[in-house]
Amino acid sequence: MAKVKKIINDPERLVEEIIEGLVLASHGALVPVPGVNAVMRREIPEKVALLIGGGSGHEPMYTAYVGDGYADASVCGHIFAAPTPDIILEATRAIHRGRGVLYVYGNYAGDNMNFDLAAEMAADEGIPVQTVRVMDDIAIADPAERRGIGGAFFQVKIAGSACREATSLEEAHRIVTKAQQAVRTLGVAVSAGSLPETGELTFEIGDDEIEIGMGAHGERGIERRKLMPADPLVEEMMRRLQEDRPLQRGDRVALLLNDLGATTMMELLIVNRKVRQILDEMGVGVHSTNIGPYLTCQEMAGFYISLLRLDDELQRHLDSPARSLGYNQV
Amino acid sequence: MAKVKKIINDPERLVEEIIEGLVLASHGALVPVPGVNAVMRREIPEKVALLIGGGSGHEPMYTAYVGDGYADASVCGHIFAAPTPDIILEATRAIHRGRGVLYVYGNYAGDNMNFDLAAEMAADEGIPVQTVRVMDDIAIADPAERRGIGGAFFQVKIAGSACREATSLEEAHRIVTKAQQAVRTLGVAVSAGSLPETGELTFEIGDDEIEIGMGAHGERGIERRKLMPADPLVEEMMRRLQEDRPLQRGDRVALLLNDLGATTMMELLIVNRKVRQILDEMGVGVHSTNIGPYLTCQEMAGFYISLLRLDDELQRHLDSPARSLGYNQV
Repeated sequence: MAKVKKIINDPERLVEEIIEGLVLASHGALVPVPGVNAVMRREIPEKVALLIGGGSGHEPMYTAYVGDGYADASVCGHIFAAPTPDIILEATRAIHRGRGVLYVYGNYAGDNMNFDLAAEMAADEGIPVQTVRVMDDIAIADPAERRGIGGAFFQVKIAGSACREATSLEEAHRIVTKAQQAVRTLGVAVSAGSLPETGELTFEIGDDEIEIGMGAHGERGIERRKLMPADPLVEEMMRRLQEDRPLQRGDRVALLLNDLGATTMMELLIVNRKVRQILDEMGVGVHSTNIGPYLTCQEMAGFYISLLRLDDELQRHLDSPARSLGYNQV
Repeated sequence: MAKVKKIINDPERLVEEIIEGLVLASHGALVPVPGVNAVMRREIPEKVALLIGGGSGHEPMYTAYVGDGYADASVCGHIFAAPTPDIILEATRAIHRGRGVLYVYGNYAGDNMNFDLAAEMAADEGIPVQTVRVMDDIAIADPAERRGIGGAFFQVKIAGSACREATSLEEAHRIVTKAQQAVRTLGVAVSAGSLPETGELTFEIGDDEIEIGMGAHGERGIERRKLMPADPLVEEMMRRLQEDRPLQRGDRVALLLNDLGATTMMELLIVNRKVRQILDEMGVGVHSTNIGPYLTCQEMAGFYISLLRLDDELQRHLDSPARSLGYNQV
């Protein structure tokens, strides 16, 4: 199988160079956290601090969502690997402003272990930490085991606003937990992404196949199917989302159609058309629509449908202005 | 060669479904232009109107750059094909508010012919039209023959602001012509994109090859080279950009690193690092940085470097707030 060509330099220095490029692209808004693979805002007001992060290679998630109204820092593991506790602890110290630190990251065993360890060490130093994991992937039947995928965008966006406004860590934790419970995502993979260090594809899939429920690193999904047109595929995905947690007539949602890497906005606009027809028939209103690459898996072709059920509080935090290389909310 | 899998429905209805999906994603800001493949703002104030457009398949360009601070309408040709004069004329009529219409589109023979024809027909109806083509691709030696590629984003953004503020069509035309002359782009293709109707790749390129100067539809570039690391590739591209139109110490530019479809933000951050090192050495300041898919060629891997030399007027129009599915300027 042909290797995927990547525009990189030393594979051993990928993460360092990503951070260097991001800091330069921020025009002074961001700085590196000294000594570790993490990036933070240059100026952080006195408020509940927000730390996000995970494995690299999914850009813009998480690293490009640092800024006013988003996170105060992001910690970067190697490609598709959890950040180590020392990175997390160092970034926690760097952004703490006396009101505690909220951790938001995807529910994966390695991340859970390392963030929990760092939280304990921070607590020993007198820095209170609370955690809300992203666990939106309905391809996993057990809600406690769900992976964090595209819904991370909604959760990070709401966390950024909540931490800017909340009077306490507990209050921020309450709001972001509500967002966590309100978001559901299902994905489909059309072709594999590669490991950028080696150019090797992360899984094999036939020329006429797709996989529903594929994870963000190529983890096994629910079902492998023959390639089908957009409309029946969207019907199938929306049916599964609706079975998992039924939306009711009169509900309103925020909608994210996330490109996993090589799926075009053209395709996602066609997908959007069908998603909206189905939600209209269900009597569910759509408050906002985001379309594009928010969490990628290198050049994987495929997409996520994320639905966030809104109440007034979540909607206000979703809509509040925020600025980052990943997405400007206006 | 394996065909590329696309998430679409009827290939004959691609453009209609793109427009339908875009209008739904706009939440009331956009409406279709009745009877033709074009989309327009629901409410257009009394001002110089801005019409953009071109072949479909490059989304978000042009269609997703309609909104306050961007264009008033976009006209959509079939995939990689110029919009027909009847579409352009109909959209021109729909958005004209008594102060004339500015056309901004890429310099391709088919587009030039059809937009010019529509402009003549509009003039016959008493609608004054002026035109500024995008012609930023330095891979073409003759400046008069240059293709419009990634720099279209800067030109459309500035045109949107200029048409919002200008007191006359001539004034808007002057500002956008200045932007046209100030932007230079060079691209590199790493792998081909496909024709979405058939799934067939638009060109062949070896597993270890890249092509510098490749056009947005796979047109021949300057030179085919062996795959190389990011830093020497960026040096080569920046050297060619500098040879074409030397930047001087003390100049300041806006920078766009455009993903053609399957090149990751990870790679473009690594590219950004080297671009900035080179500009720093040249004593050229960077005012702003955009990174992401602004003009795509389906799932082509590759990217553009666009540099826009700024003066105070261009900078003010580039920075002014604007809102669209393609990019929110804050």
